[in-house]
Amino acid sequence: MPNVLSGLETPAAVIDVARMQRNIQRMQQRMEGFGVRLRPHVKTSKCLQVIDAQISAGASGVTVSTLKEAEHCFAAGITDILYAVAMAPGKLPQALALKRMGCKLSIITDSIAGARAIVAFAGGQGEVLDVWIEVDSDGHRSGIKYDDNLLLDVAQTLHDGGMQLVGVMTHAGSSYELNDAEALQRLAEQERYQCISAAERIRAAGLTCPEVSIGSTPTALSAADLEGVTEVRAGVYVFFDLVMHNVGVCQTDELALSVLTTVIGHQLEKGWVITDSGWMAMSRDRGTQRQQQDFAYGQVCHEDGQWIDGALLRSANQEHGIVTLQTPADSDLTVLFPIGSHLRILPNHACATGAQFPHYHALDANGETHIWSRLHGW
Amino acid sequence: MPNVLSGLETPAAVIDVARMQRNIQRMQQRMEGFGVRLRPHVKTSKCLQVIDAQISAGASGVTVSTLKEAEHCFAAGITDILYAVAMAPGKLPQALALKRMGCKLSIITDSIAGARAIVAFAGGQGEVLDVWIEVDSDGHRSGIKYDDNLLLDVAQTLHDGGMQLVGVMTHAGSSYELNDAEALQRLAEQERYQCISAAERIRAAGLTCPEVSIGSTPTALSAADLEGVTEVRAGVYVFFDLVMHNVGVCQTDELALSVLTTVIGHQLEKGWVITDSGWMAMSRDRGTQRQQQDFAYGQVCHEDGQWIDGALLRSANQEHGIVTLQTPADSDLTVLFPIGSHLRILPNHACATGAQFPHYHALDANGETHIWSRLHGW
Repeated sequence: MPNVLSGLETPAAVIDVARMQRNIQRMQQRMEGFGVRLRPHVKTSKCLQVIDAQISAGASGVTVSTLKEAEHCFAAGITDILYAVAMAPGKLPQALALKRMGCKLSIITDSIAGARAIVAFAGGQGEVLDVWIEVDSDGHRSGIKYDDNLLLDVAQTLHDGGMQLVGVMTHAGSSYELNDAEALQRLAEQERYQCISAAERIRAAGLTCPEVSIGSTPTALSAADLEGVTEVRAGVYVFFDLVMHNVGVCQTDELALSVLTTVIGHQLEKGWVITDSGWMAMSRDRGTQRQQQDFAYGQVCHEDGQWIDGALLRSANQEHGIVTLQTPADSDLTVLFPIGSHLRILPNHACATGAQFPHYHALDANGETHIWSRLHGW
Repeated sequence: MPNVLSGLETPAAVIDVARMQRNIQRMQQRMEGFGVRLRPHVKTSKCLQVIDAQISAGASGVTVSTLKEAEHCFAAGITDILYAVAMAPGKLPQALALKRMGCKLSIITDSIAGARAIVAFAGGQGEVLDVWIEVDSDGHRSGIKYDDNLLLDVAQTLHDGGMQLVGVMTHAGSSYELNDAEALQRLAEQERYQCISAAERIRAAGLTCPEVSIGSTPTALSAADLEGVTEVRAGVYVFFDLVMHNVGVCQTDELALSVLTTVIGHQLEKGWVITDSGWMAMSRDRGTQRQQQDFAYGQVCHEDGQWIDGALLRSANQEHGIVTLQTPADSDLTVLFPIGSHLRILPNHACATGAQFPHYHALDANGETHIWSRLHGW
């Protein structure tokens, strides 16, 4: 492959497009095997070219973490959008504006107050909004427990208020804390069981609840059974990262995002190589700190992507990274890693590292790079 | 003050302009008292309105962490710019382009290889670049020890290669790890002494070295003496943050940056208030984790800025924050912090939190807000 990366300004966020496409295929085929739809979470890439690749591979609509992502996707022709953060009353006008332009936008709630705010706003506008109820399947964040009577109260509030109760959704985000295939499979089953149970309780109360949406990358890749589920949401699988590597759901040759960096100095007596990839490039995410293998601020690779055993981005200031190595003590770091040479750093968390960059450099199978812009802000 | 914040979309990065102006005055007056110039580091704000306020208060030029910041400042009329990261050879054409447009751009190096790359490039272009040598005054990152003979070799390389050796500069970044006034004053003296000693060694070797530039916010605010120093650089003082509060160089009423957030849910049995400020808004910076007071992802305040004792942004997902409180167990969180209400979160690290936003909302003394955009990327 021609060395097109050597001409890039650094730091740069590089997508290995072949790996990304394999990751997309892997998840899509797995979901098709289960007979469920895949609704990718675009918060990872926030990039239309990546989203297009997911849709082209067969994804059904998208999940977003902000209404700005929804607007961006809708402007690009994607109409089926689930905004997977509990609806803040102040954001309802923005959501309604999308609906009125023709977007099939779904919003979520997990409280009576939230449901009442939706009903009051939409009713005042003479509109019916598509609403899902968030289920808490693992206690890690938001949602209503499937066996809590609040579930039925919220469903009834939405129904009585004239809203369209589309379904229930959950996210077993505690899967990021696991690293054992059996435990992951158990959590995936817990996520499935609790979400379908919530749907069944709502249906048993005489209300409609056609959709059951679950998912996280680790549970989506670990589930043995998706009976009763209609769609799966997952995000970080598109790039994977060191946290997912430690969770055990990807191999090192599936990590599709890296940061290209330049060596700018050495502190030889300490064995340090200084780079221009600090935390502004990598993010401050230290997601592997509490996992079985701590990669500090990232795993260091050669410019061609070859993993350098024991080479870590040990610490990071804003625009400085400090790389430490396991080379023999008599190695000349100024020769092995001369000033001006490039390295590539695999990040802990692709969602966080990507967010530090206005655009990616997408490296395709022909060895050419393309600028793919990404969203920033709200 | 009229409640202008209630109308803002969240999350939003809010600057308290009155506090910011007091912070600027405090540092400027202190440096004028020492008779040294202040060259603010604009990596904290990356915002022209903030930089303008610093220049208007008397600052002499700016320090930048990227050449994009340099281009942005130069386009706004600021000509005296120090790029305070060791020069990567691949970035020399970008630096030269700035110089040829009339920018008085200073670059830095701390190695023979770096100096030779500068000499080779500039010589090939028939240009003389303004170069400073970086001194390592506390072992925390880059630079040459003042008593290392490499210092004179690099100076000689630059001189022999026809470059303008402007001065020496250092940054005692380890000051962020201190929290004791005496230790800070000792480190400030170490920073000063080692940097002026480096300049004196270069001068004693018969080379020119007019400038001696030192600084970090904690040492700048702790130094007892700046004899021999010509300028001080500091960045985060413009906003301050919880890390600086723990270091002990600012009071809580000097923290000028906060994140406005909306309550989107509760988990009552856990005592959680869920907000729309996750790590995408706060950054993943956990800078207070190893300090004497750990503020988790930030200190929670009421919308008007009033500190809520014991209220912390305990954990953060991408677009969800979990607030925990020290309210009595029988408090009704849905009444105290209802869905749709606003809170303000003081960040650990203003440089990192600011970087998550495309713009600030600057709240002035009249209670009006203004959009101030900031740079993103390289």
